[in-house]
Amino acid sequence: MDIFKVINTRHSYRGEFTDEPVGRADLVKIVNAGICAPSGKNCQTTEFVIVDDREKLQSIGSMHTMPAMRTAKAMILCIIPYKPEAVYEGHSFAVEDCSAAVENMFLAITALGYASVWIDGWLRVCDRARMIGDIIGLCADKKVRVLLPIGVPSDKITQAEKKPFIERCWFNMYRSEP
Amino acid sequence: MDIFKVINTRHSYRGEFTDEPVGRADLVKIVNAGICAPSGKNCQTTEFVIVDDREKLQSIGSMHTMPAMRTAKAMILCIIPYKPEAVYEGHSFAVEDCSAAVENMFLAITALGYASVWIDGWLRVCDRARMIGDIIGLCADKKVRVLLPIGVPSDKITQAEKKPFIERCWFNMYRSEP
Repeated sequence: MDIFKVINTRHSYRGEFTDEPVGRADLVKIVNAGICAPSGKNCQTTEFVIVDDREKLQSIGSMHTMPAMRTAKAMILCIIPYKPEAVYEGHSFAVEDCSAAVENMFLAITALGYASVWIDGWLRVCDRARMIGDIIGLCADKKVRVLLPIGVPSDKITQAEKKPFIERCWFNMYRSEP
Repeated sequence: MDIFKVINTRHSYRGEFTDEPVGRADLVKIVNAGICAPSGKNCQTTEFVIVDDREKLQSIGSMHTMPAMRTAKAMILCIIPYKPEAVYEGHSFAVEDCSAAVENMFLAITALGYASVWIDGWLRVCDRARMIGDIIGLCADKKVRVLLPIGVPSDKITQAEKKPFIERCWFNMYRSEP
């Protein structure tokens, strides 16, 4: 599928997924897209756990009220260190690395006919990242930073409306006249 | 160009660019890919300044020793607030939003036959983000977070080697046996 079509089609899906499974070959293809993402100093700080075990999906999904979480046929959990190593002048890039990997995977998910939504802030409250970490046997120095529920969407949804180019982009001077 | 081919081809290019220009139609196409990226609560926190003015390119590029910075035919400056608004339970997602937009643009750059490199940490030291902000007339409450130099690569480069799937991804349990 053409890259620009995928970028324009990708959207955040919060509705129900159909009963159609997400095969492991597709899940591997999706995570491999994440693995190809750039990372600061090529440190590849993001790790991934693919959940497709029915009980585990149920345990995680039932923590949320969102239909996409409750009916997901697979989830990809993106894992980063609690204290990422500084790799350049005291800075670490684990959040950027993880976000780039998530975006690559989100595009791959779209290209393969599935849908997802970037679950992030929800993990940071009510100790949820730790509780989900426990379900997948995560060590104490790592945390689940982003979660992608995946499935075949049962509703047709389009991309959320975006501000037009002229309201977000300028040539050579910030907020210059077009 | 097929999404998976682009994801596998994208690489960080630090070498010299040829004299070939990067047309404005392509630059708009690239930034529109960034605009389509997801953002927390759809807040679209990232703004963009495209630099293709020769003097400005020279001013910014000469601050760096990297050939890709010194010979860039265009740059995209990604701008976020210094103090991003909390949009969910005290959390803001400006860094994630910006990173997703950068990755979309990086893929678009690749698909159109150009190359780039994600300049990030370098901006955070020696007051460089502020100095570059001054060049584009940026207001004091915003900063240049990421910079993408763009051009036609003069050398053939492949993607940096990545750890294989089995060293970064597991099914259902963290670091379980495959």
